[in-house]
Amino acid sequence: MNTQILSCDWGTSNFRLRWIDVSTASVISEVSDSIGIASVYNEWLKSGLPENGRSGYYRKILFSRIKQLANDPMKGIPVILSGMSSSSIGAMELPCKKVPVALDSAHLYVQHIAPDECCPHELLLVSGVQSGNDIMRGEETMLLGSANAATTGRLVILPGTHSKHVTVNGNSLVSFKTYMTGEFFDLLSRTSILSRSVAANSKEHWDIFEKGVRDGASGNLLNAAFHVRTAQLFAKFTNEENYHYLSGILIGNELSAISADTPPVLLICNSAFREKYSRALTISGITDEVEYLDAAAALVRGHCQIAKHYIDR
Amino acid sequence: MNTQILSCDWGTSNFRLRWIDVSTASVISEVSDSIGIASVYNEWLKSGLPENGRSGYYRKILFSRIKQLANDPMKGIPVILSGMSSSSIGAMELPCKKVPVALDSAHLYVQHIAPDECCPHELLLVSGVQSGNDIMRGEETMLLGSANAATTGRLVILPGTHSKHVTVNGNSLVSFKTYMTGEFFDLLSRTSILSRSVAANSKEHWDIFEKGVRDGASGNLLNAAFHVRTAQLFAKFTNEENYHYLSGILIGNELSAISADTPPVLLICNSAFREKYSRALTISGITDEVEYLDAAAALVRGHCQIAKHYIDR
Repeated sequence: MNTQILSCDWGTSNFRLRWIDVSTASVISEVSDSIGIASVYNEWLKSGLPENGRSGYYRKILFSRIKQLANDPMKGIPVILSGMSSSSIGAMELPCKKVPVALDSAHLYVQHIAPDECCPHELLLVSGVQSGNDIMRGEETMLLGSANAATTGRLVILPGTHSKHVTVNGNSLVSFKTYMTGEFFDLLSRTSILSRSVAANSKEHWDIFEKGVRDGASGNLLNAAFHVRTAQLFAKFTNEENYHYLSGILIGNELSAISADTPPVLLICNSAFREKYSRALTISGITDEVEYLDAAAALVRGHCQIAKHYIDR
Repeated sequence: MNTQILSCDWGTSNFRLRWIDVSTASVISEVSDSIGIASVYNEWLKSGLPENGRSGYYRKILFSRIKQLANDPMKGIPVILSGMSSSSIGAMELPCKKVPVALDSAHLYVQHIAPDECCPHELLLVSGVQSGNDIMRGEETMLLGSANAATTGRLVILPGTHSKHVTVNGNSLVSFKTYMTGEFFDLLSRTSILSRSVAANSKEHWDIFEKGVRDGASGNLLNAAFHVRTAQLFAKFTNEENYHYLSGILIGNELSAISADTPPVLLICNSAFREKYSRALTISGITDEVEYLDAAAALVRGHCQIAKHYIDR
């Protein structure tokens, strides 16, 4: 039995690799960078290499990161990889499982890739889940790592670039929706006319954030977003305050899609999102009873379960 | 009396100048380009010239365009200029009139600028209108040019980069809201993850556009927009079809902000928007009785009225 795995989360714009002790699901060491799947895909296209070399191309990059963690101790340790790696722009496109999907490692779609000279590590590539109009790649692994803990009968919210609202019944992922909240924030704050009205900062302006949540929940997003501009033109908010106002508008608008009879909410995210979404859920009148799980820990637990199911037979 | 004027609409990203016969409000000739206020402002910032030279800097550019229309005949003809020229990034920032504003040339704010060596034409700079949370620069002139014709008691919709929904009671502009519909379309189709799922084209796909309108009207925009991506991933629509689907989603979402007891709608726009918004208003169940005025003609009429009031005394 492998008592250690390499847990890799390769998203559109970020790469994160963790060396894990499976028995305790604890992190021995990790490396991360912003060399996401999107930029690797662009480099791959430029390389002009044949399609049958694509998997190796991505795994060479993966191996270069593995070597950053440590050297000899890594030998023979398998890599569990989820996220955008299995997408059309990833190492190997895999079909998605369709909902409903039991949150059990046996019910996700996992592709085994043998070690070779590109990457001398056994690789388990985890594919995503799709519903009629939506798709997730990565979140299914966090949900797997959270199942039986707190997901049952919950509306699970996974905030991010493309936030997910997932309904779990029994132990099955039955439906979900994607909200482009994080990407809209990025587009509006960096490249729209609003970019002149906001300034990135990490201060706390909870009163302004909460006003944004109310305005975004009660109004039309195409209109509410413009008020970030007039808040600057009419000197209501500074550009730094407006940054939090825009964040509130978008999160409030996302949460306005939740119906009044929603089940209890479970948040799976980092601590920064936890604070924002918890406040926004309360302000929006949805619920002030929010369970929380750390997204990184959930991901690692999911990878450990996949490792146990697919390797330790 | 001046029987001719130069009618100039200088927006954020476009410049349009028309030589007008005032008695008939007809266009003798025109020039247009994409040298909008935003790019002129950036050049102005780079020039390092003193603030008291700003008006002249913009008017020199204006004069270079006037010379493209014709030569000698232009002498002494006044220019009426509306749009972003009076904004913080324009030739001279002017305060806005606050609602309610009577749609009468006497009630807009117009700044007179005398001819000089930068531009040997008398200039009337028209300022915008603001409400509690919204601002318009340019649309007030189109409304002025439409007043008494069809605006009274109407919800006036002026589609565009920043669409306006304006309520006119009696002969007064009493309230309005801005919707960033056109800018969201531009951001999403060109720079978001959806850019890989759409392809610009001018074909007609009314069934797909109308599905977009329904989806954008009934759903949350942050979620509905993501369905443009899955429509491509799941091979529901081609990228060319998706372009119209996204357009429909955004217009449908904009129109979903209109309440059920809305007054009759007047559209002021070009013919392309007329078709899209007329269909979307019907599909959304708001109204199928839409009055229409051509935006360019409304603008010219507004400029003619301002000329008569401010020059022919």
